[in-house]
Amino acid sequence: MAPHLVQPGWRFWRQAACTLGASVQHRTWAGVSRIPRLGSPWGATATSPRVYRSGFSTSPRAPEVMLTRERYPVRRLPFSVVSGEDLAAFERIVPGRVITDPEVLEASNVDWLRTVRGSSVLLLRPRTTEEVSHILRHCHERNLAVNPQGGNTGMVGGSVPVFDEIILSTALMNQVISFHDMSGTLVCQAGCVLEDLSRHVEERGFVMPLDLGAKGSCHIGGNVATNAGGLRFLRYGSLHGTVLGLEVVLADGTVLNCLSTLRKDNTGYDLKQLFIGSEGTLGVITAVSILCPPKPRAVSVAFLSCPGFSEVLQTFSTCKGLLGEILSAYEFMDAECMWLVTHHLRLASPVQDPSRFIPDQHTGRRYHVAESVCASEPVDPESPFYVLIETSGSRAGHDAEKLNDFLEQVLSSGLVTDGTVATDHMKVKGMGTCTST
Amino acid sequence: MAPHLVQPGWRFWRQAACTLGASVQHRTWAGVSRIPRLGSPWGATATSPRVYRSGFSTSPRAPEVMLTRERYPVRRLPFSVVSGEDLAAFERIVPGRVITDPEVLEASNVDWLRTVRGSSVLLLRPRTTEEVSHILRHCHERNLAVNPQGGNTGMVGGSVPVFDEIILSTALMNQVISFHDMSGTLVCQAGCVLEDLSRHVEERGFVMPLDLGAKGSCHIGGNVATNAGGLRFLRYGSLHGTVLGLEVVLADGTVLNCLSTLRKDNTGYDLKQLFIGSEGTLGVITAVSILCPPKPRAVSVAFLSCPGFSEVLQTFSTCKGLLGEILSAYEFMDAECMWLVTHHLRLASPVQDPSRFIPDQHTGRRYHVAESVCASEPVDPESPFYVLIETSGSRAGHDAEKLNDFLEQVLSSGLVTDGTVATDHMKVKGMGTCTST
Repeated sequence: MAPHLVQPGWRFWRQAACTLGASVQHRTWAGVSRIPRLGSPWGATATSPRVYRSGFSTSPRAPEVMLTRERYPVRRLPFSVVSGEDLAAFERIVPGRVITDPEVLEASNVDWLRTVRGSSVLLLRPRTTEEVSHILRHCHERNLAVNPQGGNTGMVGGSVPVFDEIILSTALMNQVISFHDMSGTLVCQAGCVLEDLSRHVEERGFVMPLDLGAKGSCHIGGNVATNAGGLRFLRYGSLHGTVLGLEVVLADGTVLNCLSTLRKDNTGYDLKQLFIGSEGTLGVITAVSILCPPKPRAVSVAFLSCPGFSEVLQTFSTCKGLLGEILSAYEFMDAECMWLVTHHLRLASPVQDPSRFIPDQHTGRRYHVAESVCASEPVDPESPFYVLIETSGSRAGHDAEKLNDFLEQVLSSGLVTDGTVATDHMKVKGMGTCTST
Repeated sequence: MAPHLVQPGWRFWRQAACTLGASVQHRTWAGVSRIPRLGSPWGATATSPRVYRSGFSTSPRAPEVMLTRERYPVRRLPFSVVSGEDLAAFERIVPGRVITDPEVLEASNVDWLRTVRGSSVLLLRPRTTEEVSHILRHCHERNLAVNPQGGNTGMVGGSVPVFDEIILSTALMNQVISFHDMSGTLVCQAGCVLEDLSRHVEERGFVMPLDLGAKGSCHIGGNVATNAGGLRFLRYGSLHGTVLGLEVVLADGTVLNCLSTLRKDNTGYDLKQLFIGSEGTLGVITAVSILCPPKPRAVSVAFLSCPGFSEVLQTFSTCKGLLGEILSAYEFMDAECMWLVTHHLRLASPVQDPSRFIPDQHTGRRYHVAESVCASEPVDPESPFYVLIETSGSRAGHDAEKLNDFLEQVLSSGLVTDGTVATDHMKVKGMGTCTST
């Protein structure tokens, strides 16, 4: 590994950015006064986050974000400053994609939550691994600091510069390299947007093993670099299991090709694992090979009220047993979360009326899986805890039977006091909005 | 990581053992004349491999295995030789567990396939992580080579010494530390036998995420160190996804505690990943935290004949679509494999008679899921390819319906020409023997 080690300074710098971001995140969520500014269109109408987020970041009315270096006691390490010769060298490597316009740079210098701001004067937009390699080799030789950036959708300020690091964007590295429709293995460049990849594989009968609220903007390379979990984690597990291979460019420009597509590969050290979650500190991910599971034919979502946290846990155990292999998500939120969501984001609580569970006249059972809609007006929460359960399976009839039996058991035993179920695609999406926001 | 790096010599030495083993394995399977010696009791009667394997390794009639150093052009690196002072030091660290008896050492010096043999004069059997740490610290200071050893069930000769390395056995590190029956997280010492762990978690409603033919002898630490795949790989994925944490002792005695039990953990570098598949070259795994999925309530196995390899692939695609989330294993073997298994291991081919698929009088469908038994006498294979499909689900009725529909489709379309299905536990196990051997 010796020849591949990164510059210690670069590594430190990126870590500093992450650490700062973590504290910023905490403060942001503690200060709920910012939340109303998110507005209601997003989520409530299931508008693509890509549209909303980009609008938010570049809004001319948005107040200036304080520079990170002024807000926090951080010290710039002795990296070089970008010179005219550097700009000329970069222009030779990525002609026409060397951005120095401050207005264009603004969106890349500020994080999505608008809490930290760098002062980079240079944004580079390579299209190929070779270009990334040449850029990093030049930076390494010139002792220039670099900030790799994907979709800039992170919530912890880790995707923007702290000082004047060169921003290396993967936005133009957005090509699907291959998809194998027998194994479900997708190989693509790191800058592919997650939603685009989802569409690509869904047309072929598969799904991406991860799904995020920011899918309309985030890049797969950034997902891997931050080891993103997301909504499908319970079913398909972490990226350490689903990422089959990576191509990475190290700080000195060396290309590390671990872009395997073999699922059952236990030969030698699995070096790619080190880059999953390393947030750009060990190298720039340029391509990803990832395993896509078959697309479920039926998806249902139940949104339930639980009288206490103990019941939330017991409901989890019960649904693992009765729903088994079709359980694909289990999330909970407390009353305070529901209050924030309904009052500030103006989303409706899916659990508004006990009549959501309709007595089933055909089977004689107490409850059946009923289609229901979200209320148009927010209501006060009435339960201390809420649970969202998603099932994904290959046969709707079997899934409905399992879900029915589960609901009957948790409702009759008092683990759940109220709830609603949806199987229609748009309603499923709408109900998920409450927890994913 | 600098202070944790292993002695380069030790690393090289272990790699040499693995490389040798790989070529040995190839030669062994090409020379089928050895296979009849495996005898018929194993597999045919589902005898625990633990009993059989230990009997095989210590059989007094077994011919002497040539020393690796005489068989291959390998060179001993300038490590020290174990002295009387070393023995005294080890006796203080692991009193009563310092083994120098050549007869006892014999089983640990020879691999299970009896193809390579080391000449170690010392076997140490620590019980705790602290003891492993003290042993390695002493070896590091004295420049003594070490060979970590689990159940010694590997097929590539990587678990035995090449020369006179000290054998560090995890056999007495066999305690379950904890099991969380809400999350299914098992934490245990590295020397726990896989079958014992399976029993432990199955009594609590869970299964181990991996299963191997050698489960009666192999240690979980060895499974992780070799990144074992096994029979449940298709369903539960690789150990990179299911292992949540590791405790490892590095070559200088440093204890690296990455024994997390949190599934959705994306904080910092995931250092434990480096040790999964590193085969003891980076450190000795002393404890494992692993995620256990809920135990399926119904398991079925179908053993089918396919007329060609193209049909094997199309059958795979079809069963991924129709069986979906209940598909837990898909394995294939060709006619030559079947010939070897039936003639040399005297196992019966599960596919012997087309009447295995019985017309279903109740549903009017052409085939139904029928219980059937393996023939008692081996038969000549009649098909170029065979496929084993396992389903595991939470409701037998649903699973049977899905399997029925799948069988009807592949049989009527000619993808499959013949087959048999079992749902009874013992018959399922018996049918799996054909492919797992």
